[in-house]
Amino acid sequence: MKDLNEIRENVLIDVWSKAFLRAPAQINWPHESDSELIAIPGDSDRCLAVTTDAISEEIALGFYKDPFTMGWMTIAASVSDLAAVGADPLGLVISVAIESDRPVEFSSRIAEGMEAACRRLGVHILGGDTNTSESLVLSATAMGIVSRSGAMTRTGCNPGDVLFVTGGIGAGNALILSQLADLPIELFSEYDFRPVAQIGIGRILGEFASSCMDTSDGLLATLDQLMRLNRCGFHLEAGWGDILDPAAHRICEVTRTHPWLMAAGPHGEFQLVFTVPPLRIPEFQVAMRNHGLAPIRLGRVKERDSITARADSGERIEVDTGAVRNLFAHVDGEIQGYLSELVQLGVSWGLTTRNCREEVTQEGTSIN
Amino acid sequence: MKDLNEIRENVLIDVWSKAFLRAPAQINWPHESDSELIAIPGDSDRCLAVTTDAISEEIALGFYKDPFTMGWMTIAASVSDLAAVGADPLGLVISVAIESDRPVEFSSRIAEGMEAACRRLGVHILGGDTNTSESLVLSATAMGIVSRSGAMTRTGCNPGDVLFVTGGIGAGNALILSQLADLPIELFSEYDFRPVAQIGIGRILGEFASSCMDTSDGLLATLDQLMRLNRCGFHLEAGWGDILDPAAHRICEVTRTHPWLMAAGPHGEFQLVFTVPPLRIPEFQVAMRNHGLAPIRLGRVKERDSITARADSGERIEVDTGAVRNLFAHVDGEIQGYLSELVQLGVSWGLTTRNCREEVTQEGTSIN
Repeated sequence: MKDLNEIRENVLIDVWSKAFLRAPAQINWPHESDSELIAIPGDSDRCLAVTTDAISEEIALGFYKDPFTMGWMTIAASVSDLAAVGADPLGLVISVAIESDRPVEFSSRIAEGMEAACRRLGVHILGGDTNTSESLVLSATAMGIVSRSGAMTRTGCNPGDVLFVTGGIGAGNALILSQLADLPIELFSEYDFRPVAQIGIGRILGEFASSCMDTSDGLLATLDQLMRLNRCGFHLEAGWGDILDPAAHRICEVTRTHPWLMAAGPHGEFQLVFTVPPLRIPEFQVAMRNHGLAPIRLGRVKERDSITARADSGERIEVDTGAVRNLFAHVDGEIQGYLSELVQLGVSWGLTTRNCREEVTQEGTSIN
Repeated sequence: MKDLNEIRENVLIDVWSKAFLRAPAQINWPHESDSELIAIPGDSDRCLAVTTDAISEEIALGFYKDPFTMGWMTIAASVSDLAAVGADPLGLVISVAIESDRPVEFSSRIAEGMEAACRRLGVHILGGDTNTSESLVLSATAMGIVSRSGAMTRTGCNPGDVLFVTGGIGAGNALILSQLADLPIELFSEYDFRPVAQIGIGRILGEFASSCMDTSDGLLATLDQLMRLNRCGFHLEAGWGDILDPAAHRICEVTRTHPWLMAAGPHGEFQLVFTVPPLRIPEFQVAMRNHGLAPIRLGRVKERDSITARADSGERIEVDTGAVRNLFAHVDGEIQGYLSELVQLGVSWGLTTRNCREEVTQEGTSIN
């Protein structure tokens, strides 16, 4: 049985959540849901969904250089967690800890990015708090309302359920790769990276999905967590190249990177991974068509708790997603070491296309 | 007319809030309320109150040394903002940005402090987010429910209303003073500083108060903000020494500090300042007695927008609370300079008792 505690991040979360007495009105259990679900007194039909998300590592590592991107991502990340439970947003509050020597233009540009994301997503910032600090930390708490019966959690899928993702994945990892490989800015840059939370489809999925989780930590991390929570596994039938966002696809082509790495890397996007019981599939497909939506069919839920997929040879392989998730901590957060080990894991599973990093290392340049 | 924008902090807040489109369902205006108030769709009687508060400066300046205190203060600060609108708490989410080299015991101790504050206040942590960062930033978002008619804001008081505070003030500033003066730990230390948000009385005040705001930035800053928002002033009838928390009183005695400094300093506590129209006073007093509560009568709301009080001589003086609020920014956050200028402001208004800082500077020791 694959345990939640094999994953370093889950253990770190438990240090906190085990210290706290559970709220009597809380509906979800720890790890079980992208947003916390809390009963509203005197309202038996609906609950409050609330989620908080902070951005600091991505800024410290230099992946977001424009403060506009920092602001955008702060909003999108927390609204995505509302989308994953199927909630209707009520609004957000933000918390900004910022160095005292930052010019006011820097703050204004963060605020611009936040507001642009809000308008794109149809949500509003209600208020917030600003503080000075020695490093920049942006966080947003998003609140929404969801019917108790329609609230999705990460648990509930069964073997045989069909596995989907709302859209192409890999843009977050493509951004990191294009920066590490110092790709020409025209190919894909931070300015093209404006991921959108799936609020619209999230609302509809509540009626059909047996489980749902966003891909904010990358597709494989999402599947790994769902596997551990549901004590079942997933078989990926879709080809690795067929589930990519167009930008991620382009970066893979140019850098000769195996597309599996776009699913494996830790910088996700805000798609939703969800499962639908086979009996609900016809109705679900009609609903998707009626709304002009085209989620990607990834594969199936299976009994045994492992993630299987296809190697380059077509052979069925097992992907050790636990090893993938723990890798960054395992290499002490050293990025080149992380990438190199990740590539090696893929090679060991038969995912072997030449990759960008070899290019960079061996030829001392990015792309010729 | 005293403008909100004379205060540096209000200007900084506006950099953010002016960038954001107002939510159609939002009930309060910027600066107008300690918590954001947002209509709940389909519920015409009640609204959601939400507020976020981060702690970083106090930690960076070394005022909280025990991570337990850091955790406690994070929870108390945000719950206090719920109390100030009269809300019933639904719960909190926390966001923790923490240095990667902190031992797990440090995190556990923060969590312990958070949980202790929650139990003391009868609230629960629903979930949260942890990130690594180069400096420690703790924030909490508290949510609650309040009836639309009973929700208090900072605005609404009128000349003639009676001005109260829920309890003695000055503990936060006493903590800072006792640390700067290196007082013996038995007198007053961080371990005695466990301020409590006024959730219980907040709920009752909704029925009587014409305006309400918590004292988290210190009493004079609170009165200054209420003055600017309501375009009226306050006359403080109570003696400076009569409005102090017992610990603050003791520290003033020992260090021969003028008690007005406990109201002037920027580290507040979580009392509520509120006003009650004269016609409601008899009923209000009955309600307070019935609940065993004894708020302190501070003075009166007056027409002209200034803060007046009594000098040591008994003479009526005007206290330039705007100058007090801007002082920390004016001296570029240098604490000794701040204290020295603050003392001088008091002297210029006839608040002249010898104070601790002189002791420290002149004799090179704290207390003899």
